[in-house]
Amino acid sequence: MSDTVTIALDAMGGDRAPEMVVKGASIALQRFPQARFLFFGAEASIRPLLAKLPRLSARASIHHTDEIITGDAKPSQALRAGRRSSMRLAIDAVADGEADCIVSAGNTGALMAMAKFALKTLPGIDRPAMAAGFLTHRGESVMLDLGANVECDADNLVQFALMGDVFARTVLGLLKPTVGILTIGSEELKGHEEVRAAAARLRRPDSPLRFHGFIEGDDIAAGTVDVVVTDGFTGNIAVKTAEGTARLYSEFLRAAFKHSLTARIGYVFAAPALKKLRERLDPRRYNGAVFLGLQGIAVKSHGGSDALGFANAIGVAVDMKVNGFLDQIRAGLASLAALQTPAAL
Amino acid sequence: MSDTVTIALDAMGGDRAPEMVVKGASIALQRFPQARFLFFGAEASIRPLLAKLPRLSARASIHHTDEIITGDAKPSQALRAGRRSSMRLAIDAVADGEADCIVSAGNTGALMAMAKFALKTLPGIDRPAMAAGFLTHRGESVMLDLGANVECDADNLVQFALMGDVFARTVLGLLKPTVGILTIGSEELKGHEEVRAAAARLRRPDSPLRFHGFIEGDDIAAGTVDVVVTDGFTGNIAVKTAEGTARLYSEFLRAAFKHSLTARIGYVFAAPALKKLRERLDPRRYNGAVFLGLQGIAVKSHGGSDALGFANAIGVAVDMKVNGFLDQIRAGLASLAALQTPAAL
Repeated sequence: MSDTVTIALDAMGGDRAPEMVVKGASIALQRFPQARFLFFGAEASIRPLLAKLPRLSARASIHHTDEIITGDAKPSQALRAGRRSSMRLAIDAVADGEADCIVSAGNTGALMAMAKFALKTLPGIDRPAMAAGFLTHRGESVMLDLGANVECDADNLVQFALMGDVFARTVLGLLKPTVGILTIGSEELKGHEEVRAAAARLRRPDSPLRFHGFIEGDDIAAGTVDVVVTDGFTGNIAVKTAEGTARLYSEFLRAAFKHSLTARIGYVFAAPALKKLRERLDPRRYNGAVFLGLQGIAVKSHGGSDALGFANAIGVAVDMKVNGFLDQIRAGLASLAALQTPAAL
Repeated sequence: MSDTVTIALDAMGGDRAPEMVVKGASIALQRFPQARFLFFGAEASIRPLLAKLPRLSARASIHHTDEIITGDAKPSQALRAGRRSSMRLAIDAVADGEADCIVSAGNTGALMAMAKFALKTLPGIDRPAMAAGFLTHRGESVMLDLGANVECDADNLVQFALMGDVFARTVLGLLKPTVGILTIGSEELKGHEEVRAAAARLRRPDSPLRFHGFIEGDDIAAGTVDVVVTDGFTGNIAVKTAEGTARLYSEFLRAAFKHSLTARIGYVFAAPALKKLRERLDPRRYNGAVFLGLQGIAVKSHGGSDALGFANAIGVAVDMKVNGFLDQIRAGLASLAALQTPAAL
């Protein structure tokens, strides 16, 4: 059937692998009955887990390897010595056309390096980027780059804007996403010419994107734009700062409810509403980062993810495939090409 | 009396000036009975406010000027045309030795430019920085730079580390603060050599600071270190991202309590504990940014601050004066000088 989506899974990546990976696939199959799964890893560990899940088993195959990329492996080391690893073989399945996408909860740097090497960068994209969706006051937005590129020039930022736009349309389901470039409100903005140069290009009337302009740090959670474009250094620090702040707030809230007997009573009444709040803020809903700009779909699930989180990471990969992410990037690149050089006056 | 601290106040800066400034001074006087206040601004507005506060009046003087720096004035414009403004005259009082410190809730860029011009940079400091205290899981920390310097070299970062250390000791009351440099955990850290070069210097055994090493974005709220050192672009985005995330979380919490009748009942019981939480998270406790590295003490209160927040900004300035911030910076610079050049091997 032509609608089948084949998903290559690194069964050995992540703190709770392979159980979490197999269970995650099982949850994802309920949402995407057209999915097929290729599990790469230790057959002796995977087989008994699959045996308990007959529906999944019917749509799965195991591709044995003993080799694993550890969490502390360096990307260069993984590239050199990890050619028979579960992660690399899963990536190769996409490169060889056997699978439509790869999902792994393993070592981020190794996954990025191997995916870049085996899948190759899309023509017209200078550097792939890491992107992730996040919750805002208005709904969901996407931010990129989150750490793949420490320093970026204006071309990189313009390409990130395009990739973010396509991600917002194909994964977040937004019709005409707005794009903003992250900066600071200072008059003293003397450095970071690349930020201003990228904005100047995106502002041009022939730009295919809906460019909002500059945004500041507090616009991220406010959801001022659907696509937040920044370099990988700033993006990584912004996303981790937001995570840390949310965690601090949660801890303070928990402490407040333990503060007195009346507060504990209040908690009993408020518990269902607070449970809803927790679900709303559940990071598993927005699990994983996506490597954009490659000639294939590669999604990184959080290393500490559980089965539900891993299923959501699979969901992102399936959405990208089903909604034609790669084709849309290619089409967008064509209309973007004109922006790479200054327009004739 | 030798313990007197004289505080120059820009009475016209901030959304709710001059009422907020006068009331803030009155609150600060309760905490610091040794304080004296010089109010710079429109006498006709300030005089009636002071008349209602006899204790403050006895320790205050008004220095009339009609000129005001508006919120949208550019720094260069303020420097050129604002020489008789309330902000500038208050700064000049510090430069002339009439006051020990200046506090303003006005235009940040103008305040920075004028303070730098009139107070001059400390010998040994290449660039002043903006710093602010913030709440963490462990207590309070300080971060700098928050936007004064978009691009920073290793010398700048090492100097920020020293200034942050002295701020943590003199304002936050920490005995031996730990210092961390903000970066990302990527293996691909190819750029940002200045971050690595600064860390290499701070790691040297002859460094006078307690250097923890690198930290990531989620370490900010965790309070992993007492002093977070970063460039002004990253620092500004991190602090605003944290503010935005906290606001989002608060809104979600408010919405959760309105969600159902039982949740509303729960709120009634939990209200005192939640009030304590709000007080704990109250941004007014950590009001204001400080310009460090000048030959004088200049504190910026939030433009939207109320009297309590403004009083806290005054408190930061008084703490810096009373605890010998400038002398300690000068002493620290001497021991830091050796770190500016690579050690002999």
